[in-house]
Amino acid sequence: MVTPDSPVVLALAGGVGGAKLALGLALCLSPDDLMICVNTGDDETFHGLHVSPDLDTMMYTLSGLSNQENGWGLAGDTFTALEMLRKFGADTWFNLGDRDFATHIRRTQLLAEGKTLSEVTTELNRSLGVFHGVTPMSNDPVKTVLQTDEGELPMQRYFVGRRAEPKVSEVRYLGVENAAAAPGLQNTLASAGLLVLCPSNPYLSLGPILALPGVRQKMRTFPGKKVCVSPIVGGDAVKGPAGKIMAELGKQVSCVEVAREYRDICDVFVMDVQDRALALEIQELGITPLVTSTIMETEEDKIALAREILALVG
Amino acid sequence: MVTPDSPVVLALAGGVGGAKLALGLALCLSPDDLMICVNTGDDETFHGLHVSPDLDTMMYTLSGLSNQENGWGLAGDTFTALEMLRKFGADTWFNLGDRDFATHIRRTQLLAEGKTLSEVTTELNRSLGVFHGVTPMSNDPVKTVLQTDEGELPMQRYFVGRRAEPKVSEVRYLGVENAAAAPGLQNTLASAGLLVLCPSNPYLSLGPILALPGVRQKMRTFPGKKVCVSPIVGGDAVKGPAGKIMAELGKQVSCVEVAREYRDICDVFVMDVQDRALALEIQELGITPLVTSTIMETEEDKIALAREILALVG
Repeated sequence: MVTPDSPVVLALAGGVGGAKLALGLALCLSPDDLMICVNTGDDETFHGLHVSPDLDTMMYTLSGLSNQENGWGLAGDTFTALEMLRKFGADTWFNLGDRDFATHIRRTQLLAEGKTLSEVTTELNRSLGVFHGVTPMSNDPVKTVLQTDEGELPMQRYFVGRRAEPKVSEVRYLGVENAAAAPGLQNTLASAGLLVLCPSNPYLSLGPILALPGVRQKMRTFPGKKVCVSPIVGGDAVKGPAGKIMAELGKQVSCVEVAREYRDICDVFVMDVQDRALALEIQELGITPLVTSTIMETEEDKIALAREILALVG
Repeated sequence: MVTPDSPVVLALAGGVGGAKLALGLALCLSPDDLMICVNTGDDETFHGLHVSPDLDTMMYTLSGLSNQENGWGLAGDTFTALEMLRKFGADTWFNLGDRDFATHIRRTQLLAEGKTLSEVTTELNRSLGVFHGVTPMSNDPVKTVLQTDEGELPMQRYFVGRRAEPKVSEVRYLGVENAAAAPGLQNTLASAGLLVLCPSNPYLSLGPILALPGVRQKMRTFPGKKVCVSPIVGGDAVKGPAGKIMAELGKQVSCVEVAREYRDICDVFVMDVQDRALALEIQELGITPLVTSTIMETEEDKIALAREILALVG
């Protein structure tokens, strides 16, 4: 366990992979000592409801309600509302369970009442017993779109609707230049002692956060330790299309490439034992490699990795 | 069956009781020959979604999907979304099933896209295979509120939230003076050959429709036959609080009182055999009594009553 005067930890994360490490950190830190900043570049309006896929994956993971088999949604959820919406002629390509719908209904209602996405996120998380800090990256809309061989696709349309099959030539974050970093991100960035880039997709998950005006610059001058955990292990992504996209963008599919992406904002690069042979290349980038087991299957795995990271500032 | 040159029938209805007769009429008439005008004075916003209880009861009844035991909602519906909304701290006194939520989500979305409630109602009904005309009474908001010994209560708060227990001293239809009769009501009123007031609550269900500017006046001068079916049988309402409210408003709880309410817009008053002794009193109001069995339990009951009514203009 971390001592009471441990520095506050700011973790940046997307969905499933990032949420695993975030859960590990939450299990090691008191609520006041952790702020998890989550990508909202995939947020979409489905059936008139505001859906925040990564915020929901994070909330369901931290509250122990997530469907770990699917990697999305709630364990044991049913799909009767979606079936009925299909009868009504609605476009139901995006799977939404009945309990999941409650999240989107509540979020949409609270937003319509004038609350910010940050406020709503805190309220929803607390209702499910999550007291560690969770903040959207921004209260303003940012839309991650992929230029592909099938045309321009918003993130969820690419990822879920087209199962990440189209070939990607460019990733853009629409609206990011006018989006402000959420207060939870700004404040914690100014006060935290440890910055953790969780093992999330560099282009689709962490990219939107880092593209927010001023954020990357503030990270460069961040006085605490900056740790990045590679989402690429053994030449492919642990989960999701990160490896495929890297290849399509003409990059080397390797944890070294990830370290290169984060070179200006990374002191310690956590890489998997499978990639131990690449540690020297990381070092040559001016980054300290930390070779360990990064595959998180059990809760113990998550806690163990979190502890190794926290020990860097212990 | 009614012949191809039968006059078009306009039926006014609220929820359960009215929907039973409306179903009987739908089973006897071709889609083009029936327009059902439904009360929207109970419409409410729950969880940011537009809920139209009477329109839904009508749609679920006509499509064969209604929960006949409850008298509301869909048969076999589940309540997992509502349970989750409760976890999020939402006020969940109004029961909404998962499939029912789909209706409200879809309606809210289509309204937000700029469609009128009439257009949305037609679209939803057709999706469920209901091709007979169903129209809301108005596309404008009207709110039925009851002055009670517990203060002013909107209809659903009184009826569901307080189980119709508070004592009613007055019923008002807020906004009705600025609400226009929906096109489906206006047009059919101008062209129909038969007007049927279904056995619905005179104050809470048909009252709001009749209070729309110009509607009652047009019914008075309606050239076709005007038939009213009593919701009061044997000195009480067949279902719901109509009898209780009549008593609290200082009225006689009797089908005769209902006939008196509709005196200016009723040629034939359909009353139950249990009330046969009151037929003379109906006649003394200048209305033709039609004594028959009005209790509709089976589909055959509904068709039989519909046929007797249609025979009046056959």
